Amino acid sequence: MEKETNVGGATVSEGQSPKIQKRTFIKRDFKKEKRAEKGNASQGKGLQVMFFGGVGKIGDNMTALRYGDDILVIDVGVGFAEPDMPGVDLVIPDMSWLKAHKEMIKGIAITHAHEDHIGSLPYFLDDVKATVYGSKLSIALIEGKLREFPKIKMKSQAVNPGGAVQIGCFNVEFVHVNHSIPGSYALAITTPVGVVFVSGDFKIDFTPIAGDTTDLSRMGELGRKGVLLFMCESTNIERPGMTMSERVVGQTLDEIMDSHRNNRIIVTSFASNVHRVQQIMDLAKKYNRKVAFSGRSMINTMEIAMKIGEVKFDHKQIIDIEKADKVKDSELLILGTGSQGQEHTALDRMVKGEIANIKIGSNDLVIFSSSPVPGNEKSVTNIINQFIALGAKVIYDDLSDVHASGHACQTEFMIVHKLLKPRFFIPMHGEIKHLKYHEQFAISMGVKPQNIVVPHVGSVVEVGHNYIKELKDVLAGEKIVDGKTVYDVDNAVVKDRLQLAEDGLCVVVFGVNKNSGKMVNLPELIPRGFIYPNELGSIVKEARQVVIDAVNNAATEGEKPDWNELKNTTKKVLTNLFFKKTKRKPVIIPIILEV
Amino acid sequence: MEKETNVGGATVSEGQSPKIQKRTFIKRDFKKEKRAEKGNASQGKGLQVMFFGGVGKIGDNMTALRYGDDILVIDVGVGFAEPDMPGVDLVIPDMSWLKAHKEMIKGIAITHAHEDHIGSLPYFLDDVKATVYGSKLSIALIEGKLREFPKIKMKSQAVNPGGAVQIGCFNVEFVHVNHSIPGSYALAITTPVGVVFVSGDFKIDFTPIAGDTTDLSRMGELGRKGVLLFMCESTNIERPGMTMSERVVGQTLDEIMDSHRNNRIIVTSFASNVHRVQQIMDLAKKYNRKVAFSGRSMINTMEIAMKIGEVKFDHKQIIDIEKADKVKDSELLILGTGSQGQEHTALDRMVKGEIANIKIGSNDLVIFSSSPVPGNEKSVTNIINQFIALGAKVIYDDLSDVHASGHACQTEFMIVHKLLKPRFFIPMHGEIKHLKYHEQFAISMGVKPQNIVVPHVGSVVEVGHNYIKELKDVLAGEKIVDGKTVYDVDNAVVKDRLQLAEDGLCVVVFGVNKNSGKMVNLPELIPRGFIYPNELGSIVKEARQVVIDAVNNAATEGEKPDWNELKNTTKKVLTNLFFKKTKRKPVIIPIILEV
Repeated sequence: MEKETNVGGATVSEGQSPKIQKRTFIKRDFKKEKRAEKGNASQGKGLQVMFFGGVGKIGDNMTALRYGDDILVIDVGVGFAEPDMPGVDLVIPDMSWLKAHKEMIKGIAITHAHEDHIGSLPYFLDDVKATVYGSKLSIALIEGKLREFPKIKMKSQAVNPGGAVQIGCFNVEFVHVNHSIPGSYALAITTPVGVVFVSGDFKIDFTPIAGDTTDLSRMGELGRKGVLLFMCESTNIERPGMTMSERVVGQTLDEIMDSHRNNRIIVTSFASNVHRVQQIMDLAKKYNRKVAFSGRSMINTMEIAMKIGEVKFDHKQIIDIEKADKVKDSELLILGTGSQGQEHTALDRMVKGEIANIKIGSNDLVIFSSSPVPGNEKSVTNIINQFIALGAKVIYDDLSDVHASGHACQTEFMIVHKLLKPRFFIPMHGEIKHLKYHEQFAISMGVKPQNIVVPHVGSVVEVGHNYIKELKDVLAGEKIVDGKTVYDVDNAVVKDRLQLAEDGLCVVVFGVNKNSGKMVNLPELIPRGFIYPNELGSIVKEARQVVIDAVNNAATEGEKPDWNELKNTTKKVLTNLFFKKTKRKPVIIPIILEV
Repeated sequence: MEKETNVGGATVSEGQSPKIQKRTFIKRDFKKEKRAEKGNASQGKGLQVMFFGGVGKIGDNMTALRYGDDILVIDVGVGFAEPDMPGVDLVIPDMSWLKAHKEMIKGIAITHAHEDHIGSLPYFLDDVKATVYGSKLSIALIEGKLREFPKIKMKSQAVNPGGAVQIGCFNVEFVHVNHSIPGSYALAITTPVGVVFVSGDFKIDFTPIAGDTTDLSRMGELGRKGVLLFMCESTNIERPGMTMSERVVGQTLDEIMDSHRNNRIIVTSFASNVHRVQQIMDLAKKYNRKVAFSGRSMINTMEIAMKIGEVKFDHKQIIDIEKADKVKDSELLILGTGSQGQEHTALDRMVKGEIANIKIGSNDLVIFSSSPVPGNEKSVTNIINQFIALGAKVIYDDLSDVHASGHACQTEFMIVHKLLKPRFFIPMHGEIKHLKYHEQFAISMGVKPQNIVVPHVGSVVEVGHNYIKELKDVLAGEKIVDGKTVYDVDNAVVKDRLQLAEDGLCVVVFGVNKNSGKMVNLPELIPRGFIYPNELGSIVKEARQVVIDAVNNAATEGEKPDWNELKNTTKKVLTNLFFKKTKRKPVIIPIILEV
């Protein structure tokens, strides 16, 4: 899997780019490896880039740069639970390798404060004591998040746009970029082998609402001086053209509010999209509407953003949601959470009639200033339909320009590639299809095919002045958080739940004479979740008989029963019978009493 | 909820259209109602349109027209299981009202042979003996489907495009339309009160692959003579413009195959999209490729379509998938099922390496000539990523014009509305948001607001020469099919599975003295799916103690124990403890032995 410059690459149009390795989940002895490493003089020749998440799957963004004994961690995000993980709250990267090398970690740089970039910090900072660097808003939002984890004391430092910090042997410059949350940075990292540019999540907004356009001049300057390695997000790499400007959203919302002056207006958006909220607040003022916030994350984010001056508005404009029914429809705007159709959010509670003083009806205009996160399409459609069924008019991004993505499209990627002109390239933040697409895209922008590595979770890529190559994988993967504790993804508890969900279970209790092995108390069966009432009697009767027969056949005169053997036999005969009758394989729980 | 002409309607721009009623699921005595009806002279004045599915939710398409004692059923489709129905195979409309009135049913007209229009026939024809009318292909595919239900003997009659059949008092003309399956019809039904035009699923393809464009002239003729009621599908009503022609897909596939002559090509599409398959076969011939079918539904559909002459190709072109590895990559095209990323389909088995002689690699080009059905976005992305991870090049509809929808967009709806110029309008086949959007759309096309009814499942709409109004709902809703039996949606089995999936369960067994009520065998606990191994010991220990305490406290000297009371107490104390420790509420199954 080594790829070095000047080694002939494959013809790319034939799709012969290197295969992606399977993840390795082998348990390793880190203490032993560390001892071996310290005695290994060859360490530290190149820069190592290590991927703990964010590649091959959306979410879990976490990368580390290592040079010698210095490690810089970039982002510590959460992932999303898959449909085959019922009841799981949260997915986080496996951070055990980094924790085992924690004394090398010189700092943590945060590109921006979305959950998939900061959400795993509580499960990292419990062990790793390095300083966290990021924008003023990022640090403030992380502090807000950590209030739920009072045992964690974070050391942090806010950095202004364009500011730089020395972190171990790395000089980290925080370069301003546009994204769907303010205080977003790309990172220009001067390392002993050259400059590494990490895009973070970004777009290029030529007419942003607040602050400036993505710092293109600085990128140009860096490109002229020479960028060794470009690591770039890939979320919207398949989309042609330019991402819509945030300003267009404002103009659309203005037109809508102008033509719906008599309606009560309810708007939902991502709470962290602070500039969107600022626009909505400004429009509410223009049309003489009071604003009521609804939903905890909206209120928390706004409090923090107000405190550090990231949003600005007249406090008299805000009213408590409890008093919303005291205000005329034409003078009210409700700003609520729940744009993804999640349960227990403001919008969900409104359609269910759980917010006592807000009854949804035909004078309501509901605006979804958001888009469905992949996988949420159905729940978003559901909540829209519920509002419409109650008589409300609903406007969403399929119908009108009420939302702009925070991620660059192809024209923007072209601009950045041409400004930076990197020697080496690594696509990140995307599924495999995005990363492979971005590989081809980078080649079309002039990067040599052999100078690109498409990483996977666990990849370690070494970069020198004139080479890039993959080393052996590091331990990496995903863990799940259930309640407040961290577990392996592939655990018996989640597997049990899946089988129970699909196939139900059956408890069977009976007594067996401990000397003869004969059945003495006839079996009682308690089936759950797989037999319908109309078949219950006949199936249970038959099931009892197969258990009686099986147990009595297994008994040998004068021999004591083998209890394990009896349990397995019971499971086997019941599984066979139930599958024949119901096409299901319920979990069988035999309880045998020694009598 | 009555709406009559000349009764002042609401101003539509304010969204004051009539509210959609909640479904009614009240049990009714049909025999009694029927007796009452027969003695009721007012019956039969107007035409009744009854909705058993397909409105307010995608799928379950089933409508009935009733005039006097004549009922015509239109389509008998299946629905899709929701995420909150684990392990459920199929959803079908509640057809009990129609079955209770089966002697009135004079015939069943099928618009086209997609599952959501024919899939519930096996659960209807088991009781209803009426003749099924449809295109040659529709009837052939239904017959193929019914082979799995040998007890059902169907009476059927194939009708050619433009043909008409007298069904009771209804003259039903089958009007040719374009859709993603051949043999698709709209219905022009002459009733005693006037002409009802039912669109079926349609688009207008000006350059179709086979057959003609949707019969616009006949629609114009009907419109000139006067259409009383137009009932129209609404799937893509939110999309502007025209749907892409099937011919563009062919041109795109041609270009792709031209530029990938050395690759092995794998194409997936909907098996029922017979004209798409025809195009792919033709292109395979042009580029000298043998075709191997993979996947049962693809093979079945092709056999039926070949038999009736709906697809035409040289049989020498086809090879068995078992022999696919004997053919050079450049001379092979595999046509497989699994475009939705479903398990056990051809594509799924290919990426898992389960089709022995097909190893996916860097010389494979995989074309998804399909689009994700809403709700399947994630599974489709997953299978695409799996192919890419194995080194294949994948082309899908986000990247290239390799798929065309079978449903009309706004320009096509405009054409049809203007040709038919109906007096009354009912939007159908869509979620609430689609139906309400289509209502506004119809008003913009000239239908009077008060002449439109937006129906829900269970709606009965009466139409006369000069009025449209809603009557009392009929019993309607959904049933689930689990295995081969039909059940209520809201049943204990599915509820059990849901709780088991989220929260797991705990069996607890102990013995109690039947005289004193004291515990004699200490409790054994069998927890599943909610306690992680690291906490197992401590939680189980504590749980045993709370059960011991609760049982012994409940015992009263000299009194026999109340077994139900003991079970409830055990459930209560364990539920409380487990929730405190794990934030979950497992199903508790207490088993108490009398000793």
